[in-house]
Amino acid sequence: LNRLEDFAVQGKMIRGGLVSLGYSILRPDSPEITAPLGAAVELFQSALLVHDDIMDRDASRRGNLSLYYQYKELAETENLSDPYHTGESLGICAGDIAFFLAFDMISRIPVNGDIRSAITGTCARELAYVGNAQMIDVWWGAGTKRPTDQEVLHLYEYKTGRYTFSLPLMVGAMAAEAGEKLLGELKRFGIVIGTIFQLKDDEIGLFGNEKEIGKPVGSDIREGKKTLHYLYLEKKLSPENKERLAAIYGNREARDEDVSWVRTLMTELGIREEVNRVMSDLTKEAEEILEGFPPAEDGAKAVLTRLLAESSKRKK
Amino acid sequence: LNRLEDFAVQGKMIRGGLVSLGYSILRPDSPEITAPLGAAVELFQSALLVHDDIMDRDASRRGNLSLYYQYKELAETENLSDPYHTGESLGICAGDIAFFLAFDMISRIPVNGDIRSAITGTCARELAYVGNAQMIDVWWGAGTKRPTDQEVLHLYEYKTGRYTFSLPLMVGAMAAEAGEKLLGELKRFGIVIGTIFQLKDDEIGLFGNEKEIGKPVGSDIREGKKTLHYLYLEKKLSPENKERLAAIYGNREARDEDVSWVRTLMTELGIREEVNRVMSDLTKEAEEILEGFPPAEDGAKAVLTRLLAESSKRKK
Repeated sequence: LNRLEDFAVQGKMIRGGLVSLGYSILRPDSPEITAPLGAAVELFQSALLVHDDIMDRDASRRGNLSLYYQYKELAETENLSDPYHTGESLGICAGDIAFFLAFDMISRIPVNGDIRSAITGTCARELAYVGNAQMIDVWWGAGTKRPTDQEVLHLYEYKTGRYTFSLPLMVGAMAAEAGEKLLGELKRFGIVIGTIFQLKDDEIGLFGNEKEIGKPVGSDIREGKKTLHYLYLEKKLSPENKERLAAIYGNREARDEDVSWVRTLMTELGIREEVNRVMSDLTKEAEEILEGFPPAEDGAKAVLTRLLAESSKRKK
Repeated sequence: LNRLEDFAVQGKMIRGGLVSLGYSILRPDSPEITAPLGAAVELFQSALLVHDDIMDRDASRRGNLSLYYQYKELAETENLSDPYHTGESLGICAGDIAFFLAFDMISRIPVNGDIRSAITGTCARELAYVGNAQMIDVWWGAGTKRPTDQEVLHLYEYKTGRYTFSLPLMVGAMAAEAGEKLLGELKRFGIVIGTIFQLKDDEIGLFGNEKEIGKPVGSDIREGKKTLHYLYLEKKLSPENKERLAAIYGNREARDEDVSWVRTLMTELGIREEVNRVMSDLTKEAEEILEGFPPAEDGAKAVLTRLLAESSKRKK
């Protein structure tokens, strides 16, 4: 479980770690069950990223070339026709295969058959929701329509909350024979912590320390990311300032002083404060859920408490 | 089961029908089990086709626009940026979602949990093999390297045999609590009938009646399809004729008389005969496997026998 904390802080392998954590809320960790289940959940994530990189035309991932892009380079080396499309096609297949192998792994974990099926069904349904959220994301990304506050929060709930946090915690707990009540609480806890995580991400992208986060502050502004901060700000502006914002937001060539203007406005108009309030309300809700958990063996509850604190206080 | 025969002849919904057939080898058909399982298997197929159409840049499917292409048109109508890529991205997501929903359906079929898991695992593994075969196919399609006879047969085995025939028969039989022996026989039967089916497809594409098959005879020659006929022919040619073949095969502008020359050579050099021998050996093997099946209720064995006869005798 200490490793989970390191993972969580680095943002790596968090899902696999959450599976063990979900299990150990009810029972001492059992690696022969949680290891393959955690690996399957990580494999789902890898598969999604392989497909996402194709959609985003992203050449790099985790410090390496993204998978489809590696295939593209290989196709070039081998003088195949249409290497970019060949790379995309192989990437689609590879992502699919990773999904299948993950379902195969789950079909063999050493728990009883009904629990195994329930875990399979839960993964399948949550992945379908993620796919749906991804479609909405693609659609927004290609258009000019502004989503509503509720739509942004909904996306955070499905893409990050339910999938990154609720799903691994739930399937871990299911493997330990959790009842409906605990599963419902874990689902809600995941949604809440995931939303906090995303909002914090937006906050750091806007106001973080450039050295700590490793990307230029304000890049979300230049990329036109539809954050809650942006939607709240947009509502409070005069028509004149609204026009200025429209010229800056999503403009990759925006000048530094224009980006600073946006950031300053967000602070001065209380937007930052407003989003922080949303986060602290969610944090309170998560704390209440945690209190209701069974007194966990193996310190699982303490780790969840730390994870929650980390999510809302992290600086990178 | 009569409907299956119609389906099989039309080449539609064959997989869903084979699930019922696999089940009814052991027990009278039980629609509350075989219907959702058959639907899941069909949904896997739809998902694969959605992804395949993106890879093949195929704008039409089953007489309609292919799914990603529909999204592309929608993106155009809505004035989204980069409509073709947006269509591809939405198609990738939609295919993924269909896979997930199919796994979800399987996770709920009313059989015992261990059988449900075994069915999930079998589907997942066979789909992974199909994905692998598809990657090989993409790689060949983009390159100039000629596959070997064995590689072509291997592709027929995995993409058609195991997946289209073995898998549905096996999962149907698994739902009826088939033992390892019958499952092994069904797997082999599927591989054999699937390979016959593909070889017959190649034969019809070369020598069929244009009116019956609904596409120009010889289009496989112009498209450069790497069939067993082609590989066998290539081996028997003089260097001079080999060169002429290379200029015709895969040349979309090839003249009718050149295409006829290829077809005539295949008959004269006994290639057609040679492939027919492969088919009749496989047919004999399939008949022997069928004989060993338990005397089926509900006429399942008779339907499989007819399906086999149909596969090797059909003209379209």
